[in-house]
Amino acid sequence: MPDRKTLDVVGIGNAIVDVLVHVDDDQIDNFGLTKGTMALVDEAQAEALYAQLGPGLETSGGSAANTLAGIAQLGGRAGFIGRVRDDQLGGIFAHDIRAVGTRYETPAARDGASTARCLILVSADAQRTMCTYLGASVGLDPGDLDLEMVAQAKVLYLEGYLWDSDEAKQAFIAAAEVAKANGAEVALSLSDAFCVERHRDSFLALVDGHVDILFANEMEITSLYRANSFEEAAEQVRGRCRVAALTRSELGSVILSGDERYAVEPFKLGALVDTTGAGDLYAAGFLHAYTQGESLERCGQIGSLCAGQVVTQLGPRPQVDLKQLVQQHLGAPAL
Amino acid sequence: MPDRKTLDVVGIGNAIVDVLVHVDDDQIDNFGLTKGTMALVDEAQAEALYAQLGPGLETSGGSAANTLAGIAQLGGRAGFIGRVRDDQLGGIFAHDIRAVGTRYETPAARDGASTARCLILVSADAQRTMCTYLGASVGLDPGDLDLEMVAQAKVLYLEGYLWDSDEAKQAFIAAAEVAKANGAEVALSLSDAFCVERHRDSFLALVDGHVDILFANEMEITSLYRANSFEEAAEQVRGRCRVAALTRSELGSVILSGDERYAVEPFKLGALVDTTGAGDLYAAGFLHAYTQGESLERCGQIGSLCAGQVVTQLGPRPQVDLKQLVQQHLGAPAL
Repeated sequence: MPDRKTLDVVGIGNAIVDVLVHVDDDQIDNFGLTKGTMALVDEAQAEALYAQLGPGLETSGGSAANTLAGIAQLGGRAGFIGRVRDDQLGGIFAHDIRAVGTRYETPAARDGASTARCLILVSADAQRTMCTYLGASVGLDPGDLDLEMVAQAKVLYLEGYLWDSDEAKQAFIAAAEVAKANGAEVALSLSDAFCVERHRDSFLALVDGHVDILFANEMEITSLYRANSFEEAAEQVRGRCRVAALTRSELGSVILSGDERYAVEPFKLGALVDTTGAGDLYAAGFLHAYTQGESLERCGQIGSLCAGQVVTQLGPRPQVDLKQLVQQHLGAPAL
Repeated sequence: MPDRKTLDVVGIGNAIVDVLVHVDDDQIDNFGLTKGTMALVDEAQAEALYAQLGPGLETSGGSAANTLAGIAQLGGRAGFIGRVRDDQLGGIFAHDIRAVGTRYETPAARDGASTARCLILVSADAQRTMCTYLGASVGLDPGDLDLEMVAQAKVLYLEGYLWDSDEAKQAFIAAAEVAKANGAEVALSLSDAFCVERHRDSFLALVDGHVDILFANEMEITSLYRANSFEEAAEQVRGRCRVAALTRSELGSVILSGDERYAVEPFKLGALVDTTGAGDLYAAGFLHAYTQGESLERCGQIGSLCAGQVVTQLGPRPQVDLKQLVQQHLGAPAL
């Protein structure tokens, strides 16, 4: 990767404010939701659901946004592209991602739908079930893209959730072309098993044709290849992209690249509080190490450590010093 | 207290959304703030300060609002009066206080200043330093008061912070008269030592003339009477109101009533995370027990337990089942 790049990772994703609410499993059933997944709702559904929920805690979120915030916290040069409205939640989103040092310059929309919200129902076992109102974020179109920023990145990172919006999908494809033309690698997170179900064919084509680094959890990768087991899915994805980083919750993660395979242990740093952001922070740690030229195994370890931290707290943005955490558990990089 | 009352406690206070941000002590000094206190800021100052702060976590707050939310969580019949704008943060405030079962019917303002925000800087030692933009909340005037709700309460609870707004102060006095005319008791929290400094004379007159139950911490009560020690202040306040509940952080609390004096131990339920809401939840536990006819000593114990819980978490609204907590630590009421 050439030195002249001024950014390590640029991400494109939905710009979302999370509303975290504690629930019991009965409530999730009563709402007709499937535990551990993300469902899309419109504004009226979001309001109706919110009205039935207990008190919440609001925090900036969004899958790729969490990843880019994490990269900045790790000391990486990070940029994010995503669309908010010029409302209070939009202001909170923009503040928080900039406050950790992520470049964020997408202009806030002056009219139209309000800033996206995700109601995150946190169960007693720390699992999260999400209902997302995409609001202003789906209006992201190629015109909103800061292509200069994309051109400056070593890696362009995309969340699979973008596929739920035609405009955002077009914006992504445009950005991927600019990234490729500028020698960047393209990374994709599959985001959610139901998201894979909704967009399997286009994800399959994308992985084969455009993706250098793929992030997926066990459910997502088995869904993508309609595999009967994790190992079967791992065999399917091998060789289709340069690197596949497959996360398996308490089983840790597996990294595949050509003939190489690394198994990475999970980190248990405390009681499990809320799994929101686990995958996002795995990608943050992995990509930060990757763009610093570290080994794939160490990329996985740093990803695993960041994921292990975020599940011990409420919300998807680490409330600790990630740099210090890495130093403490994994020592200085081999560089 | 007559049986016909349909509400246990009604509170009037500033309707505020808190923005919690972790800081180190140097930052507090650099901002010219005094650790552990509350400063008032205008919207421009709030924005300028926010821009310099790290990422935040948003949660509904406001001193009396926290107390009334706590009373509802304890199973009490609670009502709150406070003014928000019809904006996103106002919607969050209204949702959260209703979600725990507190009656809240103050109409949201359709124009003017936005919903009040409080930037809460949480230090490593869990102390909080606050900067409040009062926004829409200061516009509370007697016309906003639901006097029918006030008439229904056994206790009317006020936060001292109201004294920072002339309109809100007038609204309080009007409400106190309705409360008295309907046989209710009036409770006041002094809120903050600097708030006492700003309004000492009117607080002194109020305690002597209108207040039945006074809540104050050590700094506030010594400031009110310009006393040299806690004991000197305790002697001063004795007999001036029916009950004085004086909190002393890790020293527990002291309850004075006529010739009676009870010393209540603090509860240490876990690591100290954030002291935001400690005084508010002490008042919640105390007033809930008080309106259930429990002994003053048990009122103090339940207050102490609720305060002990809220300091083990981030933010001023308990994320646990308070009823269960009381049952577990203090058993069923003697009723």
